[in-house]
Amino acid sequence: MKSHRQLSLKALLCYDDTMKIGIYGLGRFGQFWASKLSEYGELICYNRTKRELNDKNLTIGSQKEVLNCDTIIFCVAISSFKEVIIETTELINPDALIMDTCSVKEYPALIMEKYLKPTNKIIATHPMFGPDSAKNGLKGLPMVLSPIRVDDYSYNIWKSIFENMQLKVLKMSCAQHDKEAAYSQGVTHFVGRVLDELRLQPTELATVGYCSLMTIVEQTCNDPLQLFYDLQRYNRYAHTVRLNLKGALDKVLEILETQDQIPKELQ
Amino acid sequence: MKSHRQLSLKALLCYDDTMKIGIYGLGRFGQFWASKLSEYGELICYNRTKRELNDKNLTIGSQKEVLNCDTIIFCVAISSFKEVIIETTELINPDALIMDTCSVKEYPALIMEKYLKPTNKIIATHPMFGPDSAKNGLKGLPMVLSPIRVDDYSYNIWKSIFENMQLKVLKMSCAQHDKEAAYSQGVTHFVGRVLDELRLQPTELATVGYCSLMTIVEQTCNDPLQLFYDLQRYNRYAHTVRLNLKGALDKVLEILETQDQIPKELQ
Repeated sequence: MKSHRQLSLKALLCYDDTMKIGIYGLGRFGQFWASKLSEYGELICYNRTKRELNDKNLTIGSQKEVLNCDTIIFCVAISSFKEVIIETTELINPDALIMDTCSVKEYPALIMEKYLKPTNKIIATHPMFGPDSAKNGLKGLPMVLSPIRVDDYSYNIWKSIFENMQLKVLKMSCAQHDKEAAYSQGVTHFVGRVLDELRLQPTELATVGYCSLMTIVEQTCNDPLQLFYDLQRYNRYAHTVRLNLKGALDKVLEILETQDQIPKELQ
Repeated sequence: MKSHRQLSLKALLCYDDTMKIGIYGLGRFGQFWASKLSEYGELICYNRTKRELNDKNLTIGSQKEVLNCDTIIFCVAISSFKEVIIETTELINPDALIMDTCSVKEYPALIMEKYLKPTNKIIATHPMFGPDSAKNGLKGLPMVLSPIRVDDYSYNIWKSIFENMQLKVLKMSCAQHDKEAAYSQGVTHFVGRVLDELRLQPTELATVGYCSLMTIVEQTCNDPLQLFYDLQRYNRYAHTVRLNLKGALDKVLEILETQDQIPKELQ
């Protein structure tokens, strides 16, 4: 039975409801994204190794079946992306639309342009949320789309699907994404990892701000550690942001040290 | 006209509803706290210099009038606390119950014990919220009480008032407060100030976590800068927490530097 949402989207776009969507990679984000997309087409999922599935309704197929779909969405670690694309490119349906979901955009876009067949359509995407931050729903969460090599019709189908999911679709260049995300996403993950290293504990004395910090630690540290490294390494702007962050910390510490005289009552 | 809330509290405690409450210090927090306490007694407020009032219903009195109240609540900067207590102690009603509201507890408790008249009752308090974090109400917010020198009856009146305000009343020693707050409050303010120094900007790409970070920056940086310095200087545990935070940052940076090779596609 079709849901109301799917029918209205179909009416809007007149797209073929037998569109096959392949999800390549079933890590934490891949499984989450597959579940969210399952009502927009016939979904086939694949992972190179056997994975325990949270959503038992997902259909697992062979690599060949997934790479034969109309749209193939790669949900693999940034640092594995090049290897996966090189390994699969000859097996990919030459008419397929390819999307990545990496949290950086310049690097995977360059890889896709370089290694995919010229007939493949390409949209670089960044769903800027995950199972934790979207636990109260997708409404209003940012979804970045960078059309790399795609006709308007195919692009608009996917834009409409994401809008139908109530996401806030943002079309921008990969460079612009990486520049802004180096601050927003980079700093958030960085703060989360540093505070995790500090082993912050829950306390009855938690202020509203401290509770927010604890949530950030939890959300960022639920993501794979590899993502943190990759965000820093595969974003050309991340290094500068790290240096600025360290500079800001040193400046605040320095100001404090100049007046770090403990009052005599506490000595 | 008495509100329902005040009447039921009065019935519960049989306390004299002409209790006079003096608020000494009308900075951002003092004004906020005075507004919240106004229904629990006859409130008289005082500030050493003339201040613009947000709540026009507050009654301003002379220093003498405020120091003559039954309960006197000092809402002054931690770094001014000693000077204010020394200056006022001879003028304070010898039967009055005195509370501070400082964000550290050992230091003001020592000052009050040392300089107030032996007949004055003392509760050291820390309302762990302010106009920003309490903008959606006081319910469940932490209110620390350290009875220093006080009879059960007087302590319980104030405990009941704070509970009636729906605050989460936590009775603990000043040392325990400072130890835990050095982490919870100290780290939150520290992160807020460092990120403010970084000049983080709002962005369309804001993830849920980044929005939380921006809120923390806003909340901590709306507080006076002096509070930040005082939290660090007048809490004997803050120095260690700062060192641990710097250590955690250096450790994360170090791990990143070992794999900081930008992929050749981005060079």
